[in-house]
Amino acid sequence: MNLGFVGLGSMGHGIASNLVRAGHRVKGFNRTRSKADELEKELEGFRAVGSPAEAARGSDVVFSMLADDAAVEATFLSSEGAAIAGLAPGAVHVSMSTISPAMSTKLETAHRKAGHGYVAAPVLGRPDAAEKAQLVVLAAGAPESIARVKPLLDVVGRKVHVLGDEPKKANVVKLGVNFVLAVMLETLGEAIAMNEEHGIDAKTYLDIANSLLGSKVLEAYGTMIAEDRFRPAGFKVRLGLKDVQLALEAAESVDVPMPLGSVLRDRFIATIAEGKGDLDWSAVARTLPRPNANARARKPQ
Amino acid sequence: MNLGFVGLGSMGHGIASNLVRAGHRVKGFNRTRSKADELEKELEGFRAVGSPAEAARGSDVVFSMLADDAAVEATFLSSEGAAIAGLAPGAVHVSMSTISPAMSTKLETAHRKAGHGYVAAPVLGRPDAAEKAQLVVLAAGAPESIARVKPLLDVVGRKVHVLGDEPKKANVVKLGVNFVLAVMLETLGEAIAMNEEHGIDAKTYLDIANSLLGSKVLEAYGTMIAEDRFRPAGFKVRLGLKDVQLALEAAESVDVPMPLGSVLRDRFIATIAEGKGDLDWSAVARTLPRPNANARARKPQ
Amino acid sequence: MNLGFVGLGSMGHGIASNLVRAGHRVKGFNRTRSKADELEKELEGFRAVGSPAEAARGSDVVFSMLADDAAVEATFLSSEGAAIAGLAPGAVHVSMSTISPAMSTKLETAHRKAGHGYVAAPVLGRPDAAEKAQLVVLAAGAPESIARVKPLLDVVGRKVHVLGDEPKKANVVKLGVNFVLAVMLETLGEAIAMNEEHGIDAKTYLDIANSLLGSKVLEAYGTMIAEDRFRPAGFKVRLGLKDVQLALEAAESVDVPMPLGSVLRDRFIATIAEGKGDLDWSAVARTLPRPNANARARKPQ
Amino acid sequence: MNLGFVGLGSMGHGIASNLVRAGHRVKGFNRTRSKADELEKELEGFRAVGSPAEAARGSDVVFSMLADDAAVEATFLSSEGAAIAGLAPGAVHVSMSTISPAMSTKLETAHRKAGHGYVAAPVLGRPDAAEKAQLVVLAAGAPESIARVKPLLDVVGRKVHVLGDEPKKANVVKLGVNFVLAVMLETLGEAIAMNEEHGIDAKTYLDIANSLLGSKVLEAYGTMIAEDRFRPAGFKVRLGLKDVQLALEAAESVDVPMPLGSVLRDRFIATIAEGKGDLDWSAVARTLPRPNANARARKPQ
Repeated sequence: MNLGFVGLGSMGHGIASNLVRAGHRVKGFNRTRSKADELEKELEGFRAVGSPAEAARGSDVVFSMLADDAAVEATFLSSEGAAIAGLAPGAVHVSMSTISPAMSTKLETAHRKAGHGYVAAPVLGRPDAAEKAQLVVLAAGAPESIARVKPLLDVVGRKVHVLGDEPKKANVVKLGVNFVLAVMLETLGEAIAMNEEHGIDAKTYLDIANSLLGSKVLEAYGTMIAEDRFRPAGFKVRLGLKDVQLALEAAESVDVPMPLGSVLRDRFIATIAEGKGDLDWSAVARTLPRPNANARARKPQ
Repeated sequence: MNLGFVGLGSMGHGIASNLVRAGHRVKGFNRTRSKADELEKELEGFRAVGSPAEAARGSDVVFSMLADDAAVEATFLSSEGAAIAGLAPGAVHVSMSTISPAMSTKLETAHRKAGHGYVAAPVLGRPDAAEKAQLVVLAAGAPESIARVKPLLDVVGRKVHVLGDEPKKANVVKLGVNFVLAVMLETLGEAIAMNEEHGIDAKTYLDIANSLLGSKVLEAYGTMIAEDRFRPAGFKVRLGLKDVQLALEAAESVDVPMPLGSVLRDRFIATIAEGKGDLDWSAVARTLPRPNANARARKPQ
Repeated sequence: MNLGFVGLGSMGHGIASNLVRAGHRVKGFNRTRSKADELEKELEGFRAVGSPAEAARGSDVVFSMLADDAAVEATFLSSEGAAIAGLAPGAVHVSMSTISPAMSTKLETAHRKAGHGYVAAPVLGRPDAAEKAQLVVLAAGAPESIARVKPLLDVVGRKVHVLGDEPKKANVVKLGVNFVLAVMLETLGEAIAMNEEHGIDAKTYLDIANSLLGSKVLEAYGTMIAEDRFRPAGFKVRLGLKDVQLALEAAESVDVPMPLGSVLRDRFIATIAEGKGDLDWSAVARTLPRPNANARARKPQ
Repeated sequence: MNLGFVGLGSMGHGIASNLVRAGHRVKGFNRTRSKADELEKELEGFRAVGSPAEAARGSDVVFSMLADDAAVEATFLSSEGAAIAGLAPGAVHVSMSTISPAMSTKLETAHRKAGHGYVAAPVLGRPDAAEKAQLVVLAAGAPESIARVKPLLDVVGRKVHVLGDEPKKANVVKLGVNFVLAVMLETLGEAIAMNEEHGIDAKTYLDIANSLLGSKVLEAYGTMIAEDRFRPAGFKVRLGLKDVQLALEAAESVDVPMPLGSVLRDRFIATIAEGKGDLDWSAVARTLPRPNANARARKPQ
């Protein structure tokens, strides 16, 4: 198929590459042009273009993997971006960004008016999973649009969950999953602080807690926290705050309070206030007072 | 060995039984005498006695599995209970109750003065795990005491973690593990409420979330919550509140705030205010406003 | 002077009327036209117009008193509203709405480019204070703009605080004042619930608490809460939620977490979930569990 | 009358002195004996004694003003303190300490069994108000006991509120008043942080906020916070934490969650973790991140 791809950051790069490798022709746009140019050199079948509208023009399906609501709006709905105007009737937009359910519905409406299909397809997994086509894809949209893009989604992920015909639902589920991970980080932070201050080292506590919970994700994050190792950032504190806020807004829009989400929001902000906004988001686990641990850290070793 | 056992509730029953089955002679006391009498009929090697002091008298090791700090204090440290006075010098007290680190240290001191050993050995697992000797035991105390009781702990659990020579550490780790579980319940509650109100059913969300986290405990609780099935109570809301409060106190004693713990405390209290204190503690996940879900529930089915 | 006024709701009505009474000619626009027409009939010197741009055209100063950021943006910055385009160079926009500091700065920039002055002048006080010219005005903007509009602000309020030359500062202070009031409501709610459930009636508690604090605002809200009297709404729960969220965002933008603000946000959402979004915002004080009070309320009286 | 007084700290000193000045004979006990001896030298009519029991012996009324539940229990209910045993039948105990409603009820029961009256009479006001007999007294107890001690309470306070015949009610109201003050501190802390980080100085914000609220207490605390002046401590952070926890427990005992109280608890603990436990409790308002304010503070001045 002829595909467009807008947003070739760490996630988009892997996904677009896998689509090319599967035999599709991909026109890609990235705000920082050099990334698109590099990909053009690396991969036959990929062509760098100069605007979102150009990526959309003539494509059967255009994918987007952008930073946030504002980027999606600027790229598709504003007169500058104009990607929506570039897309031919009958084409489908697959939106993989982590955006608000409200923005997803706004996109859906705009595409419907323009005679396009729209599928929300946010993904679970980090950049390395994107490269290896090991993402979990959460997809929702009109059945005919889903049917059309499903083979493409199968190419980029190890598993595709279809969540009905309302696109926003895929975005809600995605936010709900990230929310659980974010809570986990703060939970480990609080539990480890209590343990360490009582003289139990983080590793010991984590091994026991995880022998019960048996979660690999928990184990991975627990190790990063226990070792205070927050670089390189797999997912930055700032992005974590964005996702927590999206979850809070999504919940508010249906009159659901989220007290844990509120605690997370405050914690992420406090972490950023400490100058740690660009560390891996597991760093939020290390902003609680730790008088004893800090005293130990000050000792020469 | 000659053993004493104080507290033959749902957990104590299984543990004491396994000690008898392993060939030890056990004298057991329970406040509700009938439970001890039944056990005496069932198991050769078990004898029901009339007071904690009697259970302690002549025992090499006395176990306790009681409800809370107050019960432990009344049983061991007050003049009524007098278990500590009944115990011979050189004997060891294995305290399996979920109590505060402070109470554990208080017991340790009292036993040391009396010439006894003291091992804190709280356990992870529910009553069925206790019956099947599948508990995880968290043990801490002086090495010689640990060495003495380790073979007994191996009899009642599938895994014994030794956490150093300060008994309170075992209690801290136990509270830290229960804390993670309690947070999980509230997390699922908030995430499910957001999902359901957006039209995504709990099961769908949970399957996806857990495909990432891969935790059996999460799966089990998730299913109970999705199906609103909180009876019979494996662990009651009231007991959950007790454990959350113990964690908050343990953290406070070392100057660690626990904002998630505070949210849990409020949620557990609100759940009890709704008359659900005796349901399984996973019921805390169902006290958030759910306007749409409630509307559905009001429809005749 | 020739003045424009956009937004003739309960607050704008009083303010615009006072400007006319002070001898100014006012062209007023309101989305619901009838309100502007009525004012035209009542007050010589007031003329109803059909668009924001028309209200702005030829005015020396244009006032706005609108619901939120979105309304301000639609009215001044979008092509539909076009009020900014209607305003002549050298004219000044006085923005009295409770909006975000970020939106205030955005307006300031747009007006500067267009050669206009911009003064943020949010107010403290309810509709009756607006009618009686008893508002407290918080004003910030370039000194020459302030100098120009100060006589007009003196007409509508009993006190004008000038807060420097950055307009957003006036908005921040306004949000900070509303935040204190919102916290007060929840504080009274929690304290009254505790007291009532212990058998102390709200009035008794409030009288004592306020004999110490001595605040008239507190007394007024306390009475409303004690008497469960939340209609008519002086300020609706929904608007309260908006202001709490604006405060949270304003704080976040400078990396300040606001844990009390987070609790308020959750409480306001829970109140709305109970169907009370259009009651007076003091109703948030009545959403805590009150098992005993509720039992009393169910008794026939 | 012949009076006993147990606890001659900064509050007890002033109260006991005023009772002597009113013509009563007072036998006083203090753990640190020297304070009682000094008072004996200063005031004719005051006699220092060596134990709580001695202070109680032969007294018509014995007052207590102690640090917390534990001190009250040790002094009155334990065999060491034995004050309750020293008191003659028909005498009355006036408990002015800020203690839990539960402890107050426990004391009431013990005194009733011993044939004594019991009045809970916690006070509002700081040490200087105690010296000047300007306290507000919250009294509750059996009418005949109240009638008996009312003239004495009138001597030590400017206002006595009688809150019915259940002593614990006076303790609940006291906790409810301190709770409002504690929330105020955190509220000012959050609001000032938001304002300062946006470039508005604390004093400016506080003047405006208080012009609306008009509370002298707020003004006093606001000034301390704005000037970072937390010594000498009128009321220490540690004692503030104690009172917040008592409020949380009192609320929990009647199934009322207190989310603001939970935030306070965490904030007080975090403040203590920063080594500020002995500062005035208004210091809790200064533990939020203040990146800009801190940057300013680092500059040489």
